[in-house]
Amino acid sequence: MTEDATTLAGRGEAGLLGDVLAAYRDLPTDGVLVGPGDDTALLAVRRGAVLATTDTMVRGRDWRDDWSTAEDVGVKVVTQNLADLAAMGGRGTGLLVALAAPATLPLSWARGLSTGIAHAAGLAGVPVVGGDVSSTATDAVMVAVTALGELGEGVPGPVLRDGARPGDVLAVSGSLGRSGAGLALLEAGRTTGRDERERALLEHHRRPLVDLGQGPVAARAGASAMIDVSDGLVRDADRVARASGVVLELDGTALRALADRLVPALTPEEALRQVLSGGEEHELLATFPTAGTVPAGWSVLGRAAAPGEGGADAPGVRLDGRRLDPSAGGWDHFGG
Amino acid sequence: MTEDATTLAGRGEAGLLGDVLAAYRDLPTDGVLVGPGDDTALLAVRRGAVLATTDTMVRGRDWRDDWSTAEDVGVKVVTQNLADLAAMGGRGTGLLVALAAPATLPLSWARGLSTGIAHAAGLAGVPVVGGDVSSTATDAVMVAVTALGELGEGVPGPVLRDGARPGDVLAVSGSLGRSGAGLALLEAGRTTGRDERERALLEHHRRPLVDLGQGPVAARAGASAMIDVSDGLVRDADRVARASGVVLELDGTALRALADRLVPALTPEEALRQVLSGGEEHELLATFPTAGTVPAGWSVLGRAAAPGEGGADAPGVRLDGRRLDPSAGGWDHFGG
Repeated sequence: MTEDATTLAGRGEAGLLGDVLAAYRDLPTDGVLVGPGDDTALLAVRRGAVLATTDTMVRGRDWRDDWSTAEDVGVKVVTQNLADLAAMGGRGTGLLVALAAPATLPLSWARGLSTGIAHAAGLAGVPVVGGDVSSTATDAVMVAVTALGELGEGVPGPVLRDGARPGDVLAVSGSLGRSGAGLALLEAGRTTGRDERERALLEHHRRPLVDLGQGPVAARAGASAMIDVSDGLVRDADRVARASGVVLELDGTALRALADRLVPALTPEEALRQVLSGGEEHELLATFPTAGTVPAGWSVLGRAAAPGEGGADAPGVRLDGRRLDPSAGGWDHFGG
Repeated sequence: MTEDATTLAGRGEAGLLGDVLAAYRDLPTDGVLVGPGDDTALLAVRRGAVLATTDTMVRGRDWRDDWSTAEDVGVKVVTQNLADLAAMGGRGTGLLVALAAPATLPLSWARGLSTGIAHAAGLAGVPVVGGDVSSTATDAVMVAVTALGELGEGVPGPVLRDGARPGDVLAVSGSLGRSGAGLALLEAGRTTGRDERERALLEHHRRPLVDLGQGPVAARAGASAMIDVSDGLVRDADRVARASGVVLELDGTALRALADRLVPALTPEEALRQVLSGGEEHELLATFPTAGTVPAGWSVLGRAAAPGEGGADAPGVRLDGRRLDPSAGGWDHFGG
């Protein structure tokens, strides 16, 4: 049997676990008191508290095998989880990886997944400390990752969603709409990209890698609220606005500047739509007390206002004075 | 639309999350610095380290809808995870729950799952601190739980699998084979049980609840190695034996005494088979330096010997001197 024809059934659970652990062998082990192979992991925790989050990817919903490799999926699921830690002002200290897949899954896919996870984890300096493999009776493939972490050095406390105050400045740590633009290219059949800029958009959709260190940077700079852009700018900004009881006023000029980066891969109109509602970007969206405290490299997108100010009657998001409906963009898993 | 006809699609993601969080509202919140609803949870950690483990259940493999209710599944997935913490000498401090399900799943099932999770978590005094919901394109339903924990009061360090030494006494914290016996009854069509003893076996298969506090009890008593019985006595004992480099000698008289508890629901022969290889029991199997240190309520099953002693040439498990093959009993997810 050739390598490519081997399935999980052919390799068996113990063999699969051995392959997976081999992929994680070179990751850092700082803080890992007990690693994979016993009943649980034991991880050192500094400063008395641990951050914890979990995110799942499902084949056919969160990725398509004809558009994304197993390595892409591995990178993406790690970024999704670590971005959640970054959005609290934190950094990763350990990952747990659960894979549920049919016995007919090619072993090469499971190995590729581990390679992608190891790649993204390695860039962030985070060990894989445990996991689980399960079989599915259907064709379903699911990857569930739990990320553990701690607040970054010098970060006084977690940055929550509810801390934005009227007068705060809203800013983003990088580009917006790249992942959505990449998805639009795939849906249009442009799966390889016609030039370097298109390829970068496809790459960010398939395997987003962002500067996760900007989370602690923002927290140290005094960020009053923070979230990562996973469901689209409007939808995620709306979460901050409602949690904080403020209106977030987006500045059209700033958004069009971000949208210009997506042209000519997209039309200007489609580019602006992706900046507003494109998900899976994983850059950080934060509010800061003053423009002077926004970290270098971040783009100012607008400001927070009191709900009654300027005619807005409830917490939410506005663009150049016009109210935006978060449900018109973004993603509801169950279509509700 | 009646309650029972409502699906996840009808309720929507936000509605589902609201229902789920309501089910967890009365759980203890000690140590929860940031709970569900932000990017991550933040959980207090004592003594500088956190235990972490993850376990997944998949419909059609780990449960059947005609044999188990959603509540049963919720209890079982929590017990699986908390038993792993107990097997280190630990107790739970927080759970993360990921559900992946089709939009057509009845809302009542998702609510039942949360009720079961809340029930088992409540008995253990553990809060649910976070989670994730995802949609599946197929009919697949998967529940992945991550349990975080800490070593119990007065436990000097984690009890690993590799600490058994020749001369140690092997013991189990309760019964064995109940879950496997319950499964055998289901497979024989006896889904409701003919008497109280059969119903207890069915109950332990559907929603195992064990005394998780026995993990820290064993650790304080000086347990040298510990594991929970999830894949069957022989298979799990073999893991301890190989990790520790010892032979674990099982005593047939002790096993037959445990098997007698399963008769007449099963034949004596089938009962012994379930004691040896029945999985999902989640009682704790541990080695202790002397018989005098075995905690009250535990049953002595045998002893650890050096591999060369008595004709055994490699680490493994023996019953009355006869070598047992772990691959002949227990469960491999991919049939390898």
